[in-house]
Amino acid sequence: MKDFLTIRALGRSDLESLIDRAAGLRDAIGLGEPVEQRLLGRCVANVFFEPSTRTRLSFDLAAQRLGAHLLTFDPATASTSKGESVRDTAITIAALGADILVVRHAEEGVPQLIADWTGLPVVNAGDGTNEHPTQALVDAVTLKRHFGELDGLRVGIVGDISHSRVAGSLVHALPVLGVDVKLIGPREWLPPGAHLPAAISFDEALPGLDVVYLLRVQTERGGAITESYVRDYQLSLTRSSLLREDAVIMHPGPMNRGVEITDDVADSPRSLIAEQVRNGVPARMAVLGALAGSDAWL
Amino acid sequence: MKDFLTIRALGRSDLESLIDRAAGLRDAIGLGEPVEQRLLGRCVANVFFEPSTRTRLSFDLAAQRLGAHLLTFDPATASTSKGESVRDTAITIAALGADILVVRHAEEGVPQLIADWTGLPVVNAGDGTNEHPTQALVDAVTLKRHFGELDGLRVGIVGDISHSRVAGSLVHALPVLGVDVKLIGPREWLPPGAHLPAAISFDEALPGLDVVYLLRVQTERGGAITESYVRDYQLSLTRSSLLREDAVIMHPGPMNRGVEITDDVADSPRSLIAEQVRNGVPARMAVLGALAGSDAWL
Amino acid sequence: MKDFLTIRALGRSDLESLIDRAAGLRDAIGLGEPVEQRLLGRCVANVFFEPSTRTRLSFDLAAQRLGAHLLTFDPATASTSKGESVRDTAITIAALGADILVVRHAEEGVPQLIADWTGLPVVNAGDGTNEHPTQALVDAVTLKRHFGELDGLRVGIVGDISHSRVAGSLVHALPVLGVDVKLIGPREWLPPGAHLPAAISFDEALPGLDVVYLLRVQTERGGAITESYVRDYQLSLTRSSLLREDAVIMHPGPMNRGVEITDDVADSPRSLIAEQVRNGVPARMAVLGALAGSDAWL
Repeated sequence: MKDFLTIRALGRSDLESLIDRAAGLRDAIGLGEPVEQRLLGRCVANVFFEPSTRTRLSFDLAAQRLGAHLLTFDPATASTSKGESVRDTAITIAALGADILVVRHAEEGVPQLIADWTGLPVVNAGDGTNEHPTQALVDAVTLKRHFGELDGLRVGIVGDISHSRVAGSLVHALPVLGVDVKLIGPREWLPPGAHLPAAISFDEALPGLDVVYLLRVQTERGGAITESYVRDYQLSLTRSSLLREDAVIMHPGPMNRGVEITDDVADSPRSLIAEQVRNGVPARMAVLGALAGSDAWL
Repeated sequence: MKDFLTIRALGRSDLESLIDRAAGLRDAIGLGEPVEQRLLGRCVANVFFEPSTRTRLSFDLAAQRLGAHLLTFDPATASTSKGESVRDTAITIAALGADILVVRHAEEGVPQLIADWTGLPVVNAGDGTNEHPTQALVDAVTLKRHFGELDGLRVGIVGDISHSRVAGSLVHALPVLGVDVKLIGPREWLPPGAHLPAAISFDEALPGLDVVYLLRVQTERGGAITESYVRDYQLSLTRSSLLREDAVIMHPGPMNRGVEITDDVADSPRSLIAEQVRNGVPARMAVLGALAGSDAWL
Repeated sequence: MKDFLTIRALGRSDLESLIDRAAGLRDAIGLGEPVEQRLLGRCVANVFFEPSTRTRLSFDLAAQRLGAHLLTFDPATASTSKGESVRDTAITIAALGADILVVRHAEEGVPQLIADWTGLPVVNAGDGTNEHPTQALVDAVTLKRHFGELDGLRVGIVGDISHSRVAGSLVHALPVLGVDVKLIGPREWLPPGAHLPAAISFDEALPGLDVVYLLRVQTERGGAITESYVRDYQLSLTRSSLLREDAVIMHPGPMNRGVEITDDVADSPRSLIAEQVRNGVPARMAVLGALAGSDAWL
């Protein structure tokens, strides 16, 4: 594995190895056990052309926990490099001495371009509405830890699917792992060429789901919060009572409370949302570690 | 000690232990001696909902010197989490893997709430006009190192006391340590229910003080710089000549030179202001270290 | 060597020692060899009163690679210290526990002042239009690695020389190392009292150069991009065909592509621009390491 650009590049056994590695790292950290300093003396550069908080901090702590040095290049606020092309910026950061680049950009495909330009291992931390593959890994780890087994799980992804890069990665990762995925949302937010069966009515779908995966309405990418969306898709306590008793709720965060989810549901015992965050650092450690060396870590 | 939220939670022996620990750490650092890596592999998160420079940098270096990983979460500028509640933000940072949270917020009581929500050890780095307990510790360390003995010292705290969270902690910490505290300032800036004797005239009080502790006029919290304030309370060279020869001057910084203090006094040999900054990192190391483990560090 | 404020303070043997040290560090990093943790437990503070990206990141990674703790003080955005004087800011950072200060400021001489005020070792990371001595060291390392020998090399520095602090350091460093320097540019951009022979026509000078060192037109410091500048001084493929076959092109970055340089030249095999960036971290490690101790590292 040279890069981690798209979840589509990984087969089932690759994904399962990463999931197991992440789960093992989480346990080790939780027990205070030392973690192999696999990136000791190496340099991870966070290169976020779009602002980010939780994803960037996850990579930040993941890199530190593996012993890496860290460069944080924030082109969004870097005044001197305003006007500098993405290519020149990427080549500069590579030349500074980065060993692995973690890239987020508003346009699809930029992480791949940067991998080509620099020759360095690149992790896609979100490109446009295309993919956010480490979030899909985080979510797979969360499901595996909660349910033990992924095969046969029924996951409904709900909301603004066409603008969501998280969904863009999940719809590829989960089926590979044996998960049955349903896309649920207003017709205009479903991807046109979805291979997966789309269930239009949320209420009808709920009793058949093990997992409700809610998406943030991406107002910053043109998604609009409408009254009819809240009426038909907000997961309220009433609506969640249609779920099986052991069904759970996930959300990649940050939540719009009162929009796609109500407070009582967000804070209910069904919620795995904090669990997802807890798996963020170990999952990114697994990815960074896998890119770090020629010897098999997976 | 699970948290460090208010100086009022600490008795004299607790405070003295922290002061001694801080003094020992400062000596060790000054001599280039290795410091126990008490937070090795642990993660300290700086969570400043209000901007800060010197306090945040003090905790930043304190955490590094104890071997900790560091997360800097700056909700003031984090665009993706705009609109996210303080509670969701705090729970997210805790779930990312922080072991200790250092919190500043414009509203009184938020650090306590975050301690309740997350279950993690929390250090209050300033909450509204309530408290800034690590600054009070820094100041106690500074007094102890300079005078050797705190018992019987006479400290006058001067200025905008009612808006000052530094004063809010000092008025509790210093008397516990045997220090006699006088509050000096315009009547409208003195706390209404002050238990401590308030001296109204600065000039009358000066000869009886060992320490003049000046406060920044908090224009950002509604304090106004008036001509009469400068006339009656600015510490000028003339006014400081009323002090005993061995009396000293303190200020938590940043100073408004030409307002509460003149240049010649700020830079005079009486000034312990740089000493206060010097004790900032070891004092915060003492606090972080005390929260780090179940074994006694105090 | 207490400070690294101006390249004029260094004689030929000092410069050559730093160049050799930097080259050795680059090799060690490239081979993954461990680097002496010469700043272990020490603290480097980046104090940039002007924004910077690549220079600041170079020092950031250089400090980490030497084992240092790092404080990043960004007065340009630090709201609490707005209104605080440069002197108070510098004294505060020193008192926090910094061992070495790296300073950039829009005004000439501020790094020297800060060295005087604090007594700490200071590295000048750019002061006004005066000097940028570590960039000159980076460039000398780049030339040495490429040509093997500096003596007798012919370097043309081209463009807005009077506003360029990079040029301000190069015109002193290169002649000391035996390099023949020509200043090339519009008459109004040449320094009035230049000791060095000024060649006015770029096209006439090109065949006699081993190195074309292009400067960024400093629009942020009053330099204006004119049609006649582009016509007479832009290094295009046509113009670069006047160069000797083994002549190279350098630029301190970030480039204004389409202004002082065309894309095809910037990306041609003649370009040493990425090489310059690659030498940025080891050159700054050499400087920080030289300031770190009393024992000879040079």
